[in-house]
Amino acid sequence: MKITSSRRLADYFPIVKWARAYNRVILGDDLLAAFIVTIMLIPQSLAYALLAGLPAEIGLYASMLPLVAYTIFGTSSALAVGPVAVVSLMTAAAISNLNILEPSDIILAAGILAALSGIILVLMGFLKLGFLANFLSHPVISGFITASGIVIAISQLKHIFGITAAGHTLPQIVQSLMLNIQQFNGYTACIGIISIGFLLWMRLFVHSILSKIGIASNAVSFLTKLGPVLIIISTIIITKWLALDQQGVAVIGFVPSQLPQLGFPTITSGLWVELMASAFLISIIGFVESVSVAQTLAAKKRQHIDPNQELIGLGAANIASAASSGYPVTGGFARSVVNFDAGAATPAAGAFSALGIALATLFLTPWLFYLPKAVLAATIIVAVLSLVDFTILRKTWIYSKSDFGAVALTLFGTLAFGVEIGVLLGVASSLLLYLLKTATPHIAIVGQVADSEHFRNVNRHSVRTWSNLLSIRIDQSLYFANARALDDFITASLAHNSEIEHVILQCTAINEIDASAIESLEAIIHKLDLMEVCFHLSEVKGPVMDRLKRIDFQSHLTGSIFLSHIDAIRKLANDKSQISTPFIVG
Amino acid sequence: MKITSSRRLADYFPIVKWARAYNRVILGDDLLAAFIVTIMLIPQSLAYALLAGLPAEIGLYASMLPLVAYTIFGTSSALAVGPVAVVSLMTAAAISNLNILEPSDIILAAGILAALSGIILVLMGFLKLGFLANFLSHPVISGFITASGIVIAISQLKHIFGITAAGHTLPQIVQSLMLNIQQFNGYTACIGIISIGFLLWMRLFVHSILSKIGIASNAVSFLTKLGPVLIIISTIIITKWLALDQQGVAVIGFVPSQLPQLGFPTITSGLWVELMASAFLISIIGFVESVSVAQTLAAKKRQHIDPNQELIGLGAANIASAASSGYPVTGGFARSVVNFDAGAATPAAGAFSALGIALATLFLTPWLFYLPKAVLAATIIVAVLSLVDFTILRKTWIYSKSDFGAVALTLFGTLAFGVEIGVLLGVASSLLLYLLKTATPHIAIVGQVADSEHFRNVNRHSVRTWSNLLSIRIDQSLYFANARALDDFITASLAHNSEIEHVILQCTAINEIDASAIESLEAIIHKLDLMEVCFHLSEVKGPVMDRLKRIDFQSHLTGSIFLSHIDAIRKLANDKSQISTPFIVG
Repeated sequence: MKITSSRRLADYFPIVKWARAYNRVILGDDLLAAFIVTIMLIPQSLAYALLAGLPAEIGLYASMLPLVAYTIFGTSSALAVGPVAVVSLMTAAAISNLNILEPSDIILAAGILAALSGIILVLMGFLKLGFLANFLSHPVISGFITASGIVIAISQLKHIFGITAAGHTLPQIVQSLMLNIQQFNGYTACIGIISIGFLLWMRLFVHSILSKIGIASNAVSFLTKLGPVLIIISTIIITKWLALDQQGVAVIGFVPSQLPQLGFPTITSGLWVELMASAFLISIIGFVESVSVAQTLAAKKRQHIDPNQELIGLGAANIASAASSGYPVTGGFARSVVNFDAGAATPAAGAFSALGIALATLFLTPWLFYLPKAVLAATIIVAVLSLVDFTILRKTWIYSKSDFGAVALTLFGTLAFGVEIGVLLGVASSLLLYLLKTATPHIAIVGQVADSEHFRNVNRHSVRTWSNLLSIRIDQSLYFANARALDDFITASLAHNSEIEHVILQCTAINEIDASAIESLEAIIHKLDLMEVCFHLSEVKGPVMDRLKRIDFQSHLTGSIFLSHIDAIRKLANDKSQISTPFIVG
Repeated sequence: MKITSSRRLADYFPIVKWARAYNRVILGDDLLAAFIVTIMLIPQSLAYALLAGLPAEIGLYASMLPLVAYTIFGTSSALAVGPVAVVSLMTAAAISNLNILEPSDIILAAGILAALSGIILVLMGFLKLGFLANFLSHPVISGFITASGIVIAISQLKHIFGITAAGHTLPQIVQSLMLNIQQFNGYTACIGIISIGFLLWMRLFVHSILSKIGIASNAVSFLTKLGPVLIIISTIIITKWLALDQQGVAVIGFVPSQLPQLGFPTITSGLWVELMASAFLISIIGFVESVSVAQTLAAKKRQHIDPNQELIGLGAANIASAASSGYPVTGGFARSVVNFDAGAATPAAGAFSALGIALATLFLTPWLFYLPKAVLAATIIVAVLSLVDFTILRKTWIYSKSDFGAVALTLFGTLAFGVEIGVLLGVASSLLLYLLKTATPHIAIVGQVADSEHFRNVNRHSVRTWSNLLSIRIDQSLYFANARALDDFITASLAHNSEIEHVILQCTAINEIDASAIESLEAIIHKLDLMEVCFHLSEVKGPVMDRLKRIDFQSHLTGSIFLSHIDAIRKLANDKSQISTPFIVG
């Protein structure tokens, strides 16, 4: 199946469609949503820049132009683009591979990552390669997100306790924390732990308290999101008042009160090449995260998301980020849900948030000097804990051991070896497990279900069979990896039964027969012919039949190709030898 | 399907079975076959050692104990084990990666390769991993063998023209030949070209001439195989007589008249690790080549080859080769056919050939001093030309473009980048093409074939449909890579048609539903429910149904699961709205 659509130029600018219907009511909705998202975005953009190993202002820069770019090219009205936790962790991991220490080089590398990611995403969008993201299976994504959440949370403990620590895998981080445990700072730890406690309390209990008091649900939702802002304001005041920065409490320090400089990162060829693979992974992970959020929210309003245009929207956002001293961005889950709940009606809400961040950068940054890093770490920890979900392990264990294997490997790989190896291990293992399954297909001997034209497995249903006929159904396409399985099965079946004159292969589950399998089928036909057994096919699908005709397969066949299995039986069965097999399982 | 068999100890020693029935008649057959194979094997073992970049005697050593080991552990009565062209080329390529120059180190590396290969093959045999060889598709093997044949033939031109040349890829060899063209030696070229001409004449014309004279077909076949021996004897005499070795004609030189020293290659850990990947590739390629020859010949006698025991047989042969100063061996095609035609009745024929080679080594080697290398090169060239077969390109082009792509990539990769990258490129591309196909499944809307219970594609057959029902068949297992395709198709189909109340998915071609696809199905059901459309399944296969029951999938379903599609139609169709679609294609 292919749903092709020739795209016109306007399709690449979704803004053209919704901008025509823009009016004051929509403007009001978008402005309100933008205000709430901005309040959430300020602490998040500072915190995630910290997580990525970048100065705090880079997070603010990544929350301006990228949002405007997405407004122009994106299709989701609810998606709130900007820095997110997992992509920030991946950025930190990618840059740490480079072994650069100079702060300006690190910022340059982050910009190059955004630029590469943007270019990759836009190219994938133009080439309609959005379907490639499907190769990240649900188990792999779940395992990856959970493991990333754990790594992020543990990595932030250094800020909570005031310890220097490095590394991007669980063993590295834990070892590093243990080594520097003597740096533990009591003031920092107090601030960090109280912040975590307060944020958890806001998240878990305030919601129900406010609801009980009788405050409207929308307002409750908004008030609970104020947690990070409240804790930031109070800790800034306390830190300045008690001069805790003199007591070893690490603070954000000077954040420039100016808008980002524009300009594309300079081409230092080495870095671009070295960051290519990481940029590809960041693009795919960012796209999958973003598009699944966008689709979930769109479905609630019965709207449609075009994955290929989303690639272009996210790509444009990343290119804009690279051009304004930012780092890789994507659509964030929590923020987008807030944006949706707050009533964002069009992607314009994103542009208004960008305006809010710009104003904050110009006027609020002087106040951030005394903001303890421990507080930002606390907001990160509380945010990523919601990513950690081990129920997928139990669910897949029950349903399918190979899905469980993919989750477990991805989870383990990400924790032990880092995000890049983790996700590659996940994709490789899930593909390999799928291939191994197709290489060992299920094959059933089938018989006629009483008084119907339907044929099912003799071991599961009460069916009628004929002693001179062997009816077989193979539950897999015939291709090189399993080309010999059918031969083995037929050879083994005939060894037990000398009465058989006809073998009929029911092809309902054969979606393809490749060149290797054709060789193998011809070998089977030849072998059966030597035993004076005829080989027939039934219910061959159209696309498979088309190919068989091209090589005149029918001329190799000792038997016929029947439209339906019952036709084959009616033609071939010797009624005298009709036997009934009343064998039921399950 | 799994055909498991608990193996007894005796199953690992097939010799036990056939040795009991051994008698004088069988002995006579085996001795005759062994004599003919030995005559073929002497020049081949010298030539292939030369191709592998090893001294000539290593080829003789690899043709003794390995044959005895295969006699004990192998299952094919016809397979003639020993040095073969493709594996010799792979050995040369593997060793050249190591950048070692000392001749004794090169011999050691060849021995280690044989040892590793043997261990890998035996392990695969015990673990019953023979099916892994199926991942080398027929197109990949064809492309690989053809390209190897070309590379081998071109690489031997250096001996034909007396030019030094190096490299294991087509560009390297050709460039190297061009660079040293001034080394061209007229005497060598004369011997080389006359040898090629004579061997081709023997192969192409002598057969029919002898047949016309009225000589028995078996004798003709034997006489034509004498070509290499005749040309070797004549050129040795001419070279010695005219002292051509003084004129720059390269000769084999001193070959020690002694049996190989026994003992396993010493463990120099670096080499073992470095050669691991190459040994794995040599094992797989050697196994595939060997087992396909063995099966082809066994089928002619209606005998059975056990691929897992063949792994053990070939593994034992390679371990024996390593223990007797040899290099990697496998079953050769041409030699095995001769062995079969000469009437070899049991694997004992191999052991008798080994005896023949041992006698030749002890008594004939002094005569080999004046054997020109150009003659051995000529026998290699004529032998490998039969491997080159471009018809596979045309065949796969007609049948399937993706199979064609795999052939073309393997061929190109092997010629341009060498055997190892070539075969890896082939396997990777064929798997990737298969995965891409499964990621974009064929989906058909189906209807009832007149007066039957059979349902087929509405675009290909004259079928009956119902206006309130959408019957869909997806021709692929539902798994992560295609999990969204069904959603897209159903959404697009319903957009055109508001009458539809029921969607029935006919699951005949769904061999598996993985965890990602379950998520996707639940999303579809939810989406259809919002539109007040019921979602049903029909003809779900046993193994798929078992899994769905584990997670109580039926409770998520808004509709039912029907045994057959006709049951679903009978239950759901509104007869008033029955419409006929007389639409026939093809």
